Amino acid sequence: MGKPIMVEANGYDALVVFQPSGRRTRVPPGTTLLDAARQVGVEIESICGGDMVCGKCRVLVEEGRFGEEGITSDMGHLSPVTEREMRLLRRGGTPVNARLACAARVLDDVVITIPPESRVHKQVVIKAAGKRQIVTDPAVRLAYIHLPEAELEDNTSLWDRARQALASRFGYSGLTIDTMALRELPKAWAKGHGGMTFTIWQEREVLRVQSGFRDRLLGLAVDMGTTTVAGYLCDLNAGEVLAVYGLMNPQVAYGEDLMSRISYTNTHPDGLEKLHRVAVDALTEVASETAGSIGRSPEEIVEVVLVGNSVIHHLALELDPHSLGEAPFAPVTKDAADLKARDLGLNVSPGANVHVLPLEGGHVGADNVAVALAEAPHQQSEIMLILDVGTNGEILLGNRDRVLSASSPTGPAFEGAQITHGMRAAPGAVERVRIGDATWEPRFKVIGEDVWSNQKMLPVQGICGSGIIEAVAELFAAGILRSDGRFSADCKGHPRCRKNGRTWEYVLVREDENTLGQEIVITQADVRAIQLAKAAMYAGAKLLMNRLGVHRVDKVVLAGAFGTVISKEHALLLGLFPDVPPGRVYSVGNAAGDGARIALLNRQKRLEAQELARWIEYVEIALDPLFQDEFVAAMHFPHMRDPFPHVEEILLARRREN
Amino acid sequence: MGKPIMVEANGYDALVVFQPSGRRTRVPPGTTLLDAARQVGVEIESICGGDMVCGKCRVLVEEGRFGEEGITSDMGHLSPVTEREMRLLRRGGTPVNARLACAARVLDDVVITIPPESRVHKQVVIKAAGKRQIVTDPAVRLAYIHLPEAELEDNTSLWDRARQALASRFGYSGLTIDTMALRELPKAWAKGHGGMTFTIWQEREVLRVQSGFRDRLLGLAVDMGTTTVAGYLCDLNAGEVLAVYGLMNPQVAYGEDLMSRISYTNTHPDGLEKLHRVAVDALTEVASETAGSIGRSPEEIVEVVLVGNSVIHHLALELDPHSLGEAPFAPVTKDAADLKARDLGLNVSPGANVHVLPLEGGHVGADNVAVALAEAPHQQSEIMLILDVGTNGEILLGNRDRVLSASSPTGPAFEGAQITHGMRAAPGAVERVRIGDATWEPRFKVIGEDVWSNQKMLPVQGICGSGIIEAVAELFAAGILRSDGRFSADCKGHPRCRKNGRTWEYVLVREDENTLGQEIVITQADVRAIQLAKAAMYAGAKLLMNRLGVHRVDKVVLAGAFGTVISKEHALLLGLFPDVPPGRVYSVGNAAGDGARIALLNRQKRLEAQELARWIEYVEIALDPLFQDEFVAAMHFPHMRDPFPHVEEILLARRREN
Repeated sequence: MGKPIMVEANGYDALVVFQPSGRRTRVPPGTTLLDAARQVGVEIESICGGDMVCGKCRVLVEEGRFGEEGITSDMGHLSPVTEREMRLLRRGGTPVNARLACAARVLDDVVITIPPESRVHKQVVIKAAGKRQIVTDPAVRLAYIHLPEAELEDNTSLWDRARQALASRFGYSGLTIDTMALRELPKAWAKGHGGMTFTIWQEREVLRVQSGFRDRLLGLAVDMGTTTVAGYLCDLNAGEVLAVYGLMNPQVAYGEDLMSRISYTNTHPDGLEKLHRVAVDALTEVASETAGSIGRSPEEIVEVVLVGNSVIHHLALELDPHSLGEAPFAPVTKDAADLKARDLGLNVSPGANVHVLPLEGGHVGADNVAVALAEAPHQQSEIMLILDVGTNGEILLGNRDRVLSASSPTGPAFEGAQITHGMRAAPGAVERVRIGDATWEPRFKVIGEDVWSNQKMLPVQGICGSGIIEAVAELFAAGILRSDGRFSADCKGHPRCRKNGRTWEYVLVREDENTLGQEIVITQADVRAIQLAKAAMYAGAKLLMNRLGVHRVDKVVLAGAFGTVISKEHALLLGLFPDVPPGRVYSVGNAAGDGARIALLNRQKRLEAQELARWIEYVEIALDPLFQDEFVAAMHFPHMRDPFPHVEEILLARRREN
Repeated sequence: MGKPIMVEANGYDALVVFQPSGRRTRVPPGTTLLDAARQVGVEIESICGGDMVCGKCRVLVEEGRFGEEGITSDMGHLSPVTEREMRLLRRGGTPVNARLACAARVLDDVVITIPPESRVHKQVVIKAAGKRQIVTDPAVRLAYIHLPEAELEDNTSLWDRARQALASRFGYSGLTIDTMALRELPKAWAKGHGGMTFTIWQEREVLRVQSGFRDRLLGLAVDMGTTTVAGYLCDLNAGEVLAVYGLMNPQVAYGEDLMSRISYTNTHPDGLEKLHRVAVDALTEVASETAGSIGRSPEEIVEVVLVGNSVIHHLALELDPHSLGEAPFAPVTKDAADLKARDLGLNVSPGANVHVLPLEGGHVGADNVAVALAEAPHQQSEIMLILDVGTNGEILLGNRDRVLSASSPTGPAFEGAQITHGMRAAPGAVERVRIGDATWEPRFKVIGEDVWSNQKMLPVQGICGSGIIEAVAELFAAGILRSDGRFSADCKGHPRCRKNGRTWEYVLVREDENTLGQEIVITQADVRAIQLAKAAMYAGAKLLMNRLGVHRVDKVVLAGAFGTVISKEHALLLGLFPDVPPGRVYSVGNAAGDGARIALLNRQKRLEAQELARWIEYVEIALDPLFQDEFVAAMHFPHMRDPFPHVEEILLARRREN
């Protein structure tokens, strides 16, 4: 251990400059860099609060009495490195000019750089229409303290002593402790020989106590869709995604669409309980699988953010969704909420909270709020159309002045359900399709294989959402389908086309073209299902454009997993949304999942979500008489009445290539 | 339904005087009495907030334009009674001058009396050393609202509408709702056709929603002792006890005294969980039995107050009591706490809270705080000694200037345990004993029989705590025991006395004196056990007196169930506490239970309890070197060194009577 630093008063306060912020302060010699930083509001990561345990407060020193001799590297501007500090510094393969801010005492003027990993709020890139950076500011934080054995006369309670230490060292005042954490306290103290790491929620409540020094902080963001559930296990300190896991929503067994699930709860006395239980089972599976995949236990997850549409939200929380099944489609509650995970029966850390984002209205729920949070139409001047394509299509339209939202009942066709050879996006599913304009011969790719079918015979199980959409768009582009969706008269005699009863179908994969020996066809009914789905999406968007008083949009954002696979051109060909240049169409993947992750990583964003949920104007399109008209017209490829100049360009370009 | 009241503005505000407070206000004609009362802070009970549903706001009207013609009973000073009001008034067999404050509108000057049952805060008498009145101010309140069907365009959430109604009608702002209550909301609304009663905790959180109008508000106060558990089911509106239930603490199976229970949790990996579970089982039994006895379900209980000593408190909350087993006897937490009953596994209302009073220190726990709350030594100028006699003797000493507390390990002898024929206070247990000074012949009473044994042969099962104490005191008073506790040499030859091995024993009940044919004896070991227990109590009291610097106390309060049975004279004869005139000894029964009830009925008293827990000075007497000296000296009857003039008087009086 190093000797105590003796500081002589020399009547001269040393200047400390922090980079990259440039904030500066003068402090009496002997002040630690950590204290100096606190004085000017420069936040440096520290789990142990300056106890030289965590080693998180690593900073880079550029020494010197600047202004006189320039920056020099001679010693003497900071207290010498002690052995203990050196041990902590060595842990991380540290550059020579690294110091611990809690250990280094200012003796003379210094310039200090705080590297990104030592900042409390770290920059994280969330992929979105434009790459967006957010800073980490999670609702849970860690704090390490060491409490020695009490004096023989001191019967202050263990929690009182811990609370005092957390207050004096970290500035937490008025902390409470969850019962489950209180139960952990004495054991953690004994096992850690006095050293304990507290997990603190919203600077208010201790929700976990662990023995010794810990620096792992796991959170889980879950987007629970009507058909699929996606979970992201995150490191809340670094802001990184550690593991991803997806599964089918097990509620599908009780109804493919939301209305049939509502109806199930209406007609079965234990229906709500069942749908709630399987939703929680799915969450538990996500927690176990993601944590398990990095060798951790789900009980280490201390914060969960859950988003889903209104019905999924109600079912997950065991709230009766009855009123969402009939006009005026009023939810039981729209509020953002923090629930104890244990009250949901969810097996994560016993004290963990589940934060549920607020609902907008009708069926437009917390998932749409998450999309808005991720894509931020309210921060743009361009008019943005965001389509979250899933079993329930959700639409956002607007810019910083005004944003409208709506839900459109697209049905499950976009996710491959209710399609003759439909399947979910899993290995063996056709996900890309191209059909020759002249030959009408197809080539395709399946999930799990790198090459196209014309290079190698592939194992085909079925066709997933993006595959069926591309296939239908290609069928139209190649002229096999007419713009009304019916098979062309030219089909007759083409080996890929054949009659099935009174309608035609297209043989995408012959038995002899599949290593699995199975035929994959696209029927007239499949085409109709896609038409219905895309028409619902389009009509919804059109209706919102009418309400907003705009005739065109500046850009289109395709959210939802399938948007990452389908090409913009195919989406345009299909007429999934009003005409825009292909260069203004962006596929952002699971934006609801991104939004859930943002809310998990930054608690200020939760407040923004609450404001958004109130500010975005929800439109109940089912009640609008114009919806049916728009819907019928939008059944056409790409649309019966609306001009699609960019579709013409795409078709021309195809012809030129062929 | 009555016609709307038309009020002509006459430029004259009417004077309303409320009795018994005498508060007065001037209001424009047309104002309801309820609104007028609110203006001057006169609180009138109203569950429906003035919706003419609950009928709780009944007031008595003394009409008249006083000052001019005096009080008259002519009509015209208030709006006429409508049919609806009349129906509600008729429900309660109402005097002729009764009105509903929400219905009656002021037209001219009136004097209004608010009868006790219509006051928000009702006077309740709690029996204590001095009869004490407390006013009801429970932590939970009821509020009835009616929410009509929503307009077709209004998709405001049901909870938002309810929250707005609760805010505008009752002034609750920023209400939250427990997840369990939120789940009840849609069903209650549908079933009540819009009418719902909300149970609101601390003006902060809705914890229950019931359909229609309800006015039942049940709370449970529980005193969990080392050996026995006592529960009081209360009507929180009226402040009455509706049912009482007691049982043995099932933790006794894991150790009769606290130290052996701590040791059980130390030596068994699932020991803490087991002791916790049986404690919760006992609470569940109390809830079920008390509620069941009045034909209600335990799920109707919406608030529980729990008190117990520190170890019992820790075990009930599943907090590791290890640190309470060794110096410095620091608890895990001392704080008062509000826990969700469901987090304890307690089967009451799903949203109910359990309020746990704070601990003082060491083994002096929430039960002692409850005793202090009930007996209020801090509000007296006389020096008060409060002995809570049970398996753990707890002692309070002091007055408004300073109060000390201590815990003394009396052991279970006072509760009949570890006594040869000891049993708990149940039918067939000897509870009173008299022994003739000259004859040495006994007479006794047993629980469940009205007469003494000299009038009728009784069925005797054993001897309970109060019986053994009286028996030992009588043995001493009659001269059968010497003041050192050994049997007198005169025993030889007396038919009631006989040798058992090397020591004597006294035959209290011969086989032929018991309809059950069993002999009941008091052995030298039984006498020793009582001596040890009383010496611990006395030495503890003495030590506190030394600390406080007083040589005598002004009064003694015996708390604990047994104090209600044993006579003050016998307690004095035994030397259970320092000498005071028998007239200054008070038996108050289960003061800890009274305190728990007070905290249940009045939430301000919970704050007082928290202050008391901090203010009372806990003394760890086991660590005081003088304790052993005092203890040894106090083994004598009544005490080896201290003067007991009142014992002399009692003995003289007995001799005179004989």
